[in-house]
Amino acid sequence: VKAVVALEGLPIEALPTPAALVDRDRLEANCRRMRARCDALGVRLRPHLKTAKCVEVAALSGDVGAVSTLEEAAWFLERGGPGDLVYARGVTPRDLPRVRALREAGLDLAILVDDLDVARAVREAALGDVAWIEVDSGQGRGGVRPEAAALLDIGRVLERPRGVLTHAGQSYGARGADALRAVAETERAAAVGAAERLREAGVPCPEVSVGSTPTLTHAAHLDGVTEARAGVYVFGDLFQASLGSCRLEDLALSVLTRVVSRGPDHVWVDAGALALSQDRSLAAFGDAGYGWVCDLQGRRIAGARVDVVNQAHGRVVGLGEAPPVGTPLRVLPVHACHTAAMHGVYGVVEGGEVVEQWTRLRG
Amino acid sequence: VKAVVALEGLPIEALPTPAALVDRDRLEANCRRMRARCDALGVRLRPHLKTAKCVEVAALSGDVGAVSTLEEAAWFLERGGPGDLVYARGVTPRDLPRVRALREAGLDLAILVDDLDVARAVREAALGDVAWIEVDSGQGRGGVRPEAAALLDIGRVLERPRGVLTHAGQSYGARGADALRAVAETERAAAVGAAERLREAGVPCPEVSVGSTPTLTHAAHLDGVTEARAGVYVFGDLFQASLGSCRLEDLALSVLTRVVSRGPDHVWVDAGALALSQDRSLAAFGDAGYGWVCDLQGRRIAGARVDVVNQAHGRVVGLGEAPPVGTPLRVLPVHACHTAAMHGVYGVVEGGEVVEQWTRLRG
Repeated sequence: VKAVVALEGLPIEALPTPAALVDRDRLEANCRRMRARCDALGVRLRPHLKTAKCVEVAALSGDVGAVSTLEEAAWFLERGGPGDLVYARGVTPRDLPRVRALREAGLDLAILVDDLDVARAVREAALGDVAWIEVDSGQGRGGVRPEAAALLDIGRVLERPRGVLTHAGQSYGARGADALRAVAETERAAAVGAAERLREAGVPCPEVSVGSTPTLTHAAHLDGVTEARAGVYVFGDLFQASLGSCRLEDLALSVLTRVVSRGPDHVWVDAGALALSQDRSLAAFGDAGYGWVCDLQGRRIAGARVDVVNQAHGRVVGLGEAPPVGTPLRVLPVHACHTAAMHGVYGVVEGGEVVEQWTRLRG
Repeated sequence: VKAVVALEGLPIEALPTPAALVDRDRLEANCRRMRARCDALGVRLRPHLKTAKCVEVAALSGDVGAVSTLEEAAWFLERGGPGDLVYARGVTPRDLPRVRALREAGLDLAILVDDLDVARAVREAALGDVAWIEVDSGQGRGGVRPEAAALLDIGRVLERPRGVLTHAGQSYGARGADALRAVAETERAAAVGAAERLREAGVPCPEVSVGSTPTLTHAAHLDGVTEARAGVYVFGDLFQASLGSCRLEDLALSVLTRVVSRGPDHVWVDAGALALSQDRSLAAFGDAGYGWVCDLQGRRIAGARVDVVNQAHGRVVGLGEAPPVGTPLRVLPVHACHTAAMHGVYGVVEGGEVVEQWTRLRG
């Protein structure tokens, strides 16, 4: 009686619940589409591995990636993941020995700097040439402004930075193709402008990295950019669908759950906050609750959604007459990065059966 | 270069971040206090293990417990956890073979039923005498109402149920000692009333189980009750402090984090949604954001809180002048069950040093 149950070869109706399901065909199509998009834009795709945290998903997009923690970097290294990773969160001086150790173990791990004192520590640790300078293109979450004096100060300390990197996270607050195209241009212009300032000051800046799934999807062009980062495109989710970054029928991640109790106008299922996450980022834009509800085959049940989550329970409304206890349902996530993070494995589904089981870094 | 770093023996300022810290003295005092409270109320304490999901924490409260998933039950069995567990979420017919297997492996695992069809399946599986009947004492999350005909129907099908069990989760929406005492009495009266109805109908009902940390803390008496369940008391959190279930100086769980970027009136730290959770259950009652912020020694910095979380970033406001990148801080959780679930290990702290490292079931 193991805590972890082998899923491979089971029809999905036989799986223990809750379970994270990945539709293989949709996943592969999403990856193909983003690669083609980046080819058309003339940039290298650097997938952000924080969404899936899974070697098999990373392998669908080649040997480069971005990670959000050093734990992820070490985890991918242990499992033969991509050899070229950017740790895409501001590094601290205390991280530098671990960064060096990961590099000495064979990983081409780059880091991110937006602070002059940290830049000095990075140079001291002989890591100046694997550092990117983080640029703030309007999100206000770290980074130096492209026009700030600090940009050149940091560049001069690093001497030969890899390049500049920005993420226009404000794209998540935009709505409509025009607004998203404008955010994409703001992101591009900030990064390219910062790179040009550095070069004019005599600091080499070979690389210019931008990106988020919405800005990449909507950008008119990426002139001057060398690489683009995106994460959630691999799965898509209701939030991305609301932004036009994917269609509902592209959503590759769902959570299988079962009815555990019937109420007068609702049922309770065994997927709560620790299976779906507590993400409510769509609350301002619509009424998706904690996810839309589908039948076992993944067909949406119009109007059905999870409207309450407790730790291990979710409440589903809009089903009409309550189905029996034990009835399987599938929930489409609001924000796939957070939902996926609640699971330790993916059941990879083809034709209603789990054909593979992929391990992910939980959290 | 391992993904998981050994924490034992390190001073907390040397830990990789984010990290879940448990203050051993506070944890033990919280457990002692709840045991004494249940002794005074004349009931057996059945700790809900879903908060800590940790064998060492479970051992502080004896050999009984409640779990919220069958994965937890199997995980505790693998690790020599408590031998007497209640799976305290409605069982489904598909779960029954796994329940039987866990019982045959030596675990005294009981189950919960609130549905007549499920009760029939439970009897069919010869599990009627390890089933509790779930009673709804006002939360509306599963359970039969104590006055419902279904209570007796289910009891007769099960023949010899273990007892009745209820959880007045509406206590989380109450404020003030009087209101909480009233919820506790509602919870007690519903469970005891259901037990009496069953007994009058000739269905044995030896056990009566109630509980939540707030109702146990505030109950005037628990006459007719045999056992009480509570979970979050082991750690406490800002929400429980707001309910008067603990004092701020009892909070035993915190998340160690470091500044990764400085802004004009805020800093960004490396604890985001996947270290703190996205729980905002205090939003209606105060302004705790995603947690209050303390210094390395755990002393609260008045006014400092995490006001934004992204997946791997949190924003801290109210610190005054921004401290340097790398500065360690500790965050007190809004809801410890959700925050703890984001971590795979606890660093157990005594005197500013990690004296033990405890594994927890992540998620």
